[in-house]
Amino acid sequence: MKNMLKKINVTIWNEFRHEKTNSAVKKLYPEGLHKAIADGISAEDLNIRLASLDEPEHGLTEDVVSSTDVLLWWGHCAHGEVKDEIVKRVHKRVLEGMGLIVLHSGHFSKIFKTLMGTSCSLKWREAGEKERLWNIEPSHPISQGIGEYFELPHTEMYGERFDIPQDGKIIFISWFEGGEVFRSGVALERGHGKLFYFSPGHETYSIYYDQNVLRVIGNAVRWANPLIYQAHTAPNAQPPEVIQGIPPAAQS
Amino acid sequence: MKNMLKKINVTIWNEFRHEKTNSAVKKLYPEGLHKAIADGISAEDLNIRLASLDEPEHGLTEDVVSSTDVLLWWGHCAHGEVKDEIVKRVHKRVLEGMGLIVLHSGHFSKIFKTLMGTSCSLKWREAGEKERLWNIEPSHPISQGIGEYFELPHTEMYGERFDIPQDGKIIFISWFEGGEVFRSGVALERGHGKLFYFSPGHETYSIYYDQNVLRVIGNAVRWANPLIYQAHTAPNAQPPEVIQGIPPAAQS
Amino acid sequence: MKNMLKKINVTIWNEFRHEKTNSAVKKLYPEGLHKAIADGISAEDLNIRLASLDEPEHGLTEDVVSSTDVLLWWGHCAHGEVKDEIVKRVHKRVLEGMGLIVLHSGHFSKIFKTLMGTSCSLKWREAGEKERLWNIEPSHPISQGIGEYFELPHTEMYGERFDIPQDGKIIFISWFEGGEVFRSGVALERGHGKLFYFSPGHETYSIYYDQNVLRVIGNAVRWANPLIYQAHTAPNAQPPEVIQGIPPAAQS
Amino acid sequence: MKNMLKKINVTIWNEFRHEKTNSAVKKLYPEGLHKAIADGISAEDLNIRLASLDEPEHGLTEDVVSSTDVLLWWGHCAHGEVKDEIVKRVHKRVLEGMGLIVLHSGHFSKIFKTLMGTSCSLKWREAGEKERLWNIEPSHPISQGIGEYFELPHTEMYGERFDIPQDGKIIFISWFEGGEVFRSGVALERGHGKLFYFSPGHETYSIYYDQNVLRVIGNAVRWANPLIYQAHTAPNAQPPEVIQGIPPAAQS
Repeated sequence: MKNMLKKINVTIWNEFRHEKTNSAVKKLYPEGLHKAIADGISAEDLNIRLASLDEPEHGLTEDVVSSTDVLLWWGHCAHGEVKDEIVKRVHKRVLEGMGLIVLHSGHFSKIFKTLMGTSCSLKWREAGEKERLWNIEPSHPISQGIGEYFELPHTEMYGERFDIPQDGKIIFISWFEGGEVFRSGVALERGHGKLFYFSPGHETYSIYYDQNVLRVIGNAVRWANPLIYQAHTAPNAQPPEVIQGIPPAAQS
Repeated sequence: MKNMLKKINVTIWNEFRHEKTNSAVKKLYPEGLHKAIADGISAEDLNIRLASLDEPEHGLTEDVVSSTDVLLWWGHCAHGEVKDEIVKRVHKRVLEGMGLIVLHSGHFSKIFKTLMGTSCSLKWREAGEKERLWNIEPSHPISQGIGEYFELPHTEMYGERFDIPQDGKIIFISWFEGGEVFRSGVALERGHGKLFYFSPGHETYSIYYDQNVLRVIGNAVRWANPLIYQAHTAPNAQPPEVIQGIPPAAQS
Repeated sequence: MKNMLKKINVTIWNEFRHEKTNSAVKKLYPEGLHKAIADGISAEDLNIRLASLDEPEHGLTEDVVSSTDVLLWWGHCAHGEVKDEIVKRVHKRVLEGMGLIVLHSGHFSKIFKTLMGTSCSLKWREAGEKERLWNIEPSHPISQGIGEYFELPHTEMYGERFDIPQDGKIIFISWFEGGEVFRSGVALERGHGKLFYFSPGHETYSIYYDQNVLRVIGNAVRWANPLIYQAHTAPNAQPPEVIQGIPPAAQS
Repeated sequence: MKNMLKKINVTIWNEFRHEKTNSAVKKLYPEGLHKAIADGISAEDLNIRLASLDEPEHGLTEDVVSSTDVLLWWGHCAHGEVKDEIVKRVHKRVLEGMGLIVLHSGHFSKIFKTLMGTSCSLKWREAGEKERLWNIEPSHPISQGIGEYFELPHTEMYGERFDIPQDGKIIFISWFEGGEVFRSGVALERGHGKLFYFSPGHETYSIYYDQNVLRVIGNAVRWANPLIYQAHTAPNAQPPEVIQGIPPAAQS
């Protein structure tokens, strides 16, 4: 019976630089934080691959992208190194239906900014303070299994104003010890694709070992898995109805 | 007293190519359709300038853009010739607060696609058919003075599915003689800027002499006039509250 | 294995009056249009019950409502006879999670108006004209299996302006032969419950035998099936954090 | 010249009970908190009246309601005493265009619940803790003159989950000393009327003497002032287009 279930093809993309250059990060995520996420959300219905910046075509070849149902994106210090043609490829695929989960500092990635059309700016602070994520949509697929709130003892603060369009469904709003608030989990749609932005995740904290964080990411993957893929075209359409009284000049 | 009123600085940008190469268009809009719009919406509270593609920097120098409150955009056959650096300049200014009115085939302009993040695709047909625009938000500033609906006897059809984000407030929905429907007037916000997409406007029809069309455009200009301009920054923020128990390792 | 699948408990509520008093309707829907819908969407994963106005408690006893996952609602000439206490019971259950599919003239039902908070008014005309429903969200669960559009040869016209809140996700926009447009399929959420309003369905036409209409209703039932049920409370909450410097006067 | 300016007719409605029965409240708001608000937002363009629960028809006669452009509502312990017919009158007028500003515990008023269609439930705590309201829409009319945030040293906590529809434009998100967050300023539209919910305002704190709170309320009044009033009707509409092939049976 198990084979009858179509697995979700998940690709976890990581910039994968901090893990090589910063010893604290290396110790925390020796194989990269994408590997930690992959291990953390591993399940029978998911077929998970890893990809990173320094691979050819950033590991996001036409074959990989076209066979990915849901893409996860973590980037930070090297957003500028991601080639525009790869961003274009991913963008096109999202609009056709592929799900996209953007994590933490990915708010400033080319792909997220391209999809949002806004600056995606926010406040930030690295003080290892406490964050409490309030679950304001307990009936949403992404927050299943999460209580009223969950806490991260030490996080980077991301604070409002977060410059994104207002059509996102807010799943989590965060409270920070230092006094800020943040829309930390936001679900959106663009074209035929579903997007989820989830802010926890600084590389120097053990965020991607947290069971609530992993639960949310796993839920988001299932939620973002597309029902259909459909290309966007701009057809010169035949009229379903008879058009009367067309002036000859207009029949160009 | 009149001098006390701060005028709205409006720049009407037109690709201005069809008017030079197509005799029918030239006859209809001898000085360009931007000039027809300027004449049509002319009023005491508006300070209107014209700009077009073939001017240096497309007529959208830093000075022009930074002194424009509301920009109107009409383009069609030469979207690809608009330089990316000018698009970036306009985009930045919209996010800071400048209003933007995108007309007709401008749905495929670089600036609109950049702001939407989607393909902005739609169906189309040039058959000079009748269009009826239903005013579904009679209490919105943009539809003031417009009745329950108005008609255009001969238009290019633009039909659904229109691939834009769903946070637009729909002001008009069009009915077409040939059998299609279209969200023909949509109000959006991106960053601190307001946007209005308005679909009527094919260059071979006398759309920009229609009093209802001009009324809508004039209303949209006043609606999109910004209250503030504010740049987008991503500050490393000082906490309003005392943060306790910060582990030393996190004090990077 | 089949028993492991939890069936969706569906209750189809029909005013069930026209079928008894109007011979044309009686001929078309001899056992009531709720029975035609039940037959039309019948499937292994659905456990369907019928209920109607003239049963005790309108067939919507506490037991029935609390064991219903998705409720369908068709009413027209007797909205005023539906008891307020039953409306309150259904309303409470929707906010807790129960799905609700409101059909056709149900736009003026007490339950829909209560959930919307608006007048829910619209234009109408009984002329048996053609309606074409454009599917503007082909990636949504509700429009799966539906093409670019589908047609109903003879319908009652429902036209804009439809006075509902603007947070509905528009799935279908209708074109009418007589010249109107309508947001004919709209998906909403209230509390923890999902709602779908679907406008086709006049009792004198064979709408509920149409395969596309039935497909949409069946899809909507699966979409509206809740993940959770949760009551709404307004708790006096214990603070997660220590509160300092509370002035004694405020400790009431 | 001044006479040419049409003033906004504002009615501030207050339950006005706590001020009579609780000595601390009486001392803080000797003439009622509605009087404090009236004094605080007093300006040349506003024509302000007061109304309260114990007046005939709660001070909201047909004459008062039909001559009010923007109504402010504060209620708490006596929501149940507000007569349904008066709620219906106010509801109808809001849908026709009248603005409504709902303050603090008014979230549980009949009029707000009627307009929202949801439970409007939230968490609360009276501990006199600090609240910081983050201004997340600095370009909105309601937040003009307000900085990045403002603080209230002692407030009643209102915390998420706030059960309202998701189409509200969030203007403020609050941080609380005790660890909660709240959507404390939300702008909505219902029918042709604009609504603003603003959560600060517990009767035992000097909230309505705070200059930022008063500024926000004053801004909201101007924002909610309607452009038009329009009744909601459900007309049997004449078709703009010729309808062909109507089967005789359908011509009922």
